[in-house]
Amino acid sequence: MEQDSIFMQSAIDEAKKSRSEGGIPIGAVLVRDGEIISRGHNRRVQDNDPLMHAEINCLRNAGRIGQYRDTVLYSTLMPCYLCAGAAVQFGVPKVVVGESVNFAGAKDLLLDKGVEVVNLNLPELVQMMGEYIETHSDIWNEDIGEL
Amino acid sequence: MEQDSIFMQSAIDEAKKSRSEGGIPIGAVLVRDGEIISRGHNRRVQDNDPLMHAEINCLRNAGRIGQYRDTVLYSTLMPCYLCAGAAVQFGVPKVVVGESVNFAGAKDLLLDKGVEVVNLNLPELVQMMGEYIETHSDIWNEDIGEL
Repeated sequence: MEQDSIFMQSAIDEAKKSRSEGGIPIGAVLVRDGEIISRGHNRRVQDNDPLMHAEINCLRNAGRIGQYRDTVLYSTLMPCYLCAGAAVQFGVPKVVVGESVNFAGAKDLLLDKGVEVVNLNLPELVQMMGEYIETHSDIWNEDIGEL
Repeated sequence: MEQDSIFMQSAIDEAKKSRSEGGIPIGAVLVRDGEIISRGHNRRVQDNDPLMHAEINCLRNAGRIGQYRDTVLYSTLMPCYLCAGAAVQFGVPKVVVGESVNFAGAKDLLLDKGVEVVNLNLPELVQMMGEYIETHSDIWNEDIGEL
């Protein structure tokens, strides 16, 4: 969908912002009623904070919005168990991801719990994340708990 | 185990600290090599931060410890999908919980992914959390995404 591409572009902008800060290039946005209500990106490196995955940072930046049943979470990469768990627990009904070539993530958990997953399979993101993982394998492995 | 009771007491202390701050009374500690390396408690109310569940706050406070394979996470309440997802993703092999009467949580995810779960079933915690939920049902439902 065209709308998905537009919102994903904002998540990509967040990923690039993180990269420009020396961080892991993963970005996310939360959309409600056709509008972006929060943005975030991975901040492990920037804040030395292992919990600040892009989706967590984005949900955090949204603040206490109450219920999530009319939201869609966009992420440049398939969410891991931490971030998928957040979507499941808060009742985010739909997650749109940029790619899952570089990380299979927790698609199984999302689907098991009834979260709709749309994968845009964007070559631009496969390339950007692939390059990062190749040049920063230690930070990447730390970020996904595989040291 | 006696050691589990001692560490759980520190998680209970964190829960009570949160309660004294006007927050949700859930606490957690992370143990490595027989020592507590971080403590945390739910800070949704205190920081207006929906992501600051006790276990997330505790793992965050631990900082970038690298790998988690020799850690044990203690929580006064069975972890939700967000917090269980964090344990699964980072490779925490064992979670000790204080009770699951007031919240069934994401025990299924923990067990599915090979995380050992020990439930101490402490009446003191069943009572403390039960009282909180009864008197603050709106905040509690917000915290677990059930508004």
